[in-house]
Amino acid sequence: MNAEIIAVGSELLTPQRMDTNSLYLTDELNALGVEVVAKLIVGDDRARLAEAVRGALARSEILILTGGLGPTEDDVTRDAVAQALAREQVFHQDICDAIEQRFRRRRAGPMPEINRRQAYVIAGAEALPNPNGTAPGQWIAQDGRVAILLPGPPNEMKPMFAAECLPRLERVLPAQVIRSRVFRIANMAESEVDQRVAPVYTRYTNPVTTILAAAGDIQLHLRARSATAEEAERLLSELAAQIESILGSRIYSRNGDPLEAVLGESLRGRGETVSVAESCTGGLLAERITSVRGSSDYFLGGFLVYTNRMKTALLGVSEDLLRRHTEVSEEAAQEMARGARERTGSTWALSTTGLAGPAGGTDAAPVGTVILGVAGPDGATTRRERFPGDRARVRILATQVALDLLRLRLS
Amino acid sequence: MNAEIIAVGSELLTPQRMDTNSLYLTDELNALGVEVVAKLIVGDDRARLAEAVRGALARSEILILTGGLGPTEDDVTRDAVAQALAREQVFHQDICDAIEQRFRRRRAGPMPEINRRQAYVIAGAEALPNPNGTAPGQWIAQDGRVAILLPGPPNEMKPMFAAECLPRLERVLPAQVIRSRVFRIANMAESEVDQRVAPVYTRYTNPVTTILAAAGDIQLHLRARSATAEEAERLLSELAAQIESILGSRIYSRNGDPLEAVLGESLRGRGETVSVAESCTGGLLAERITSVRGSSDYFLGGFLVYTNRMKTALLGVSEDLLRRHTEVSEEAAQEMARGARERTGSTWALSTTGLAGPAGGTDAAPVGTVILGVAGPDGATTRRERFPGDRARVRILATQVALDLLRLRLS
Repeated sequence: MNAEIIAVGSELLTPQRMDTNSLYLTDELNALGVEVVAKLIVGDDRARLAEAVRGALARSEILILTGGLGPTEDDVTRDAVAQALAREQVFHQDICDAIEQRFRRRRAGPMPEINRRQAYVIAGAEALPNPNGTAPGQWIAQDGRVAILLPGPPNEMKPMFAAECLPRLERVLPAQVIRSRVFRIANMAESEVDQRVAPVYTRYTNPVTTILAAAGDIQLHLRARSATAEEAERLLSELAAQIESILGSRIYSRNGDPLEAVLGESLRGRGETVSVAESCTGGLLAERITSVRGSSDYFLGGFLVYTNRMKTALLGVSEDLLRRHTEVSEEAAQEMARGARERTGSTWALSTTGLAGPAGGTDAAPVGTVILGVAGPDGATTRRERFPGDRARVRILATQVALDLLRLRLS
Repeated sequence: MNAEIIAVGSELLTPQRMDTNSLYLTDELNALGVEVVAKLIVGDDRARLAEAVRGALARSEILILTGGLGPTEDDVTRDAVAQALAREQVFHQDICDAIEQRFRRRRAGPMPEINRRQAYVIAGAEALPNPNGTAPGQWIAQDGRVAILLPGPPNEMKPMFAAECLPRLERVLPAQVIRSRVFRIANMAESEVDQRVAPVYTRYTNPVTTILAAAGDIQLHLRARSATAEEAERLLSELAAQIESILGSRIYSRNGDPLEAVLGESLRGRGETVSVAESCTGGLLAERITSVRGSSDYFLGGFLVYTNRMKTALLGVSEDLLRRHTEVSEEAAQEMARGARERTGSTWALSTTGLAGPAGGTDAAPVGTVILGVAGPDGATTRRERFPGDRARVRILATQVALDLLRLRLS
């Protein structure tokens, strides 16, 4: 079954606001085996909304609307849905009484006259009680489809969905089990990953495979459905095993954990520690490592050496070496990592030095050139990279390669 | 004029991802006097997308699509728009050559065959060059309306919109002048800012004022429109002057620059330097300072001292002090800042020590407790804070207070 979600409200069409309700709803719907195939955000425009409601119900079995159930003229969801379904609205005295009581209970003065509008329910709809606000929700079944009207504030919408809509949806939906797996791969292009695994995953419609790409980080999402957990797991494992055999050690995570968490687990398991010596990444590498809760178990500390003088003063990189090779060199990266390891006493040390840009590039080391270093019990190694993109992207890609270098060395 | 935005990509229909491109586009379109009346997110479904494109162009003068321009079978935007407009697609050898060159330049191996798909342009469309990726954009005018196809990655989409679309839109749109100003305020609650300035800004419909809140950071956006630049500027200045007199030195930026950039400018102007000693912020403070281009002019480096042993070994904080006061103390923060300042020779040093959580809280120092230190030519000062929220939020709020402490000390 498919669902569409419409968020109603002109404020959601400003540069400052987003519809986040749909993330919660998507999560809940996916867990029921329902795909969300479209999300729409429209302003307080009744005609436009009515058209959107008709379109969505023509395509999808489930339509959820959030917002626009308030008492003002700007709140058009009830009217628009009634219009789209060609139904009347019926005044419910009991709902009106409940809203009035709510005002009294909270000593918010007498109920304003406009709040009476919230007591109108579309003919044939079930009103969904709202313990956290004045706007009731509505559940409207028609021709094997369902339209659900929910209030916009998340603290009203979520409890109402959980208490009123989930049980109703479970009665309507076929029983099925969903199992999913997330593979993550560092430092490969999306097209390269896709070219390697597409021949395999495109042969399956169940599981469904989705690729999600961020800077230096690819996620492969596999989702299998079946009537039983065993069968869903079997479907998932069959495809997952093939993807694992193609990508091998390039896969760093099988449960969606980020690279810094995977590396941290590995260090913790070995009882080892890490420190950093950062130049061009300026703290981002340590920031990523310490973003993981409990990272103090394996992260000792490190050095931010943004200038050559600091590389010498804090890490003991010789002035002569910097003069001969410059700071953007394998030699400098090695000495930085060694220096951090010695001074902190860590098992491992990672170093970064390079040109994040936008200025400072040379022919020998153009902007985007970064040298990553790893020092460990068996010596120091380096890797030279040339990253594309702006300053922020170069820094992210550099930390991604540095973390993956150590992960591979530990595995 | 009205615009609609369609974000294409099944990954944007998962619980994990959102379309954020539309926020940038809405901001840019609003600045041109264009209202965004609907936003749609659809998956990689050609028929559904073609239907949406037809609907949007029937209603609105401007349609912007982001995403779905990649080389894979899942990338359906080109095909869907061609289908909706009943136009052919034409292979452009020059675009193909450019993509091939891009692969060669980055030593990314030969161009995969599938990337040839990106060289197809809808008949009659203008191809928009993409200096930051392989997918060109497209600008298609038809019957006084325009459909714009942009790549999904923000680092490709934004520069393309700015360089290629803004000038074209300005030629199409009625002449009017927009002037805007962005005030930024650190470490005040949104409700507190609003309570102080709402009595003033609500008296004006032009300029329009919007409040945008992030962790520890409030933005006030003022936007005035007029037929002439002088009049728009006058409208803006009248309201801006009143807001400035209310908030005074709490305003750290009058042009939208982030706190780290404002602080950097101030240091540069004084010819002074800064270093850091970070414990609970784990590199985030330095990362923010060095995210500003040219920060090597004033940022020297620093120390990540995640354990007590490192605070002693790298910064000379005495074991006795740590035993007597613990590491989450004003005394420790002071010694850390002093130690960083002495060891780097910087004019100023900032320190952070505290409990970002989730574990490790005590009665004396519950989770969220952070001490910020500033050392300078006239000694060291500290500030104790107790921040709400999770680990990530505590770390952001801590850096925000640290940066603002130094900004206020310099002003």
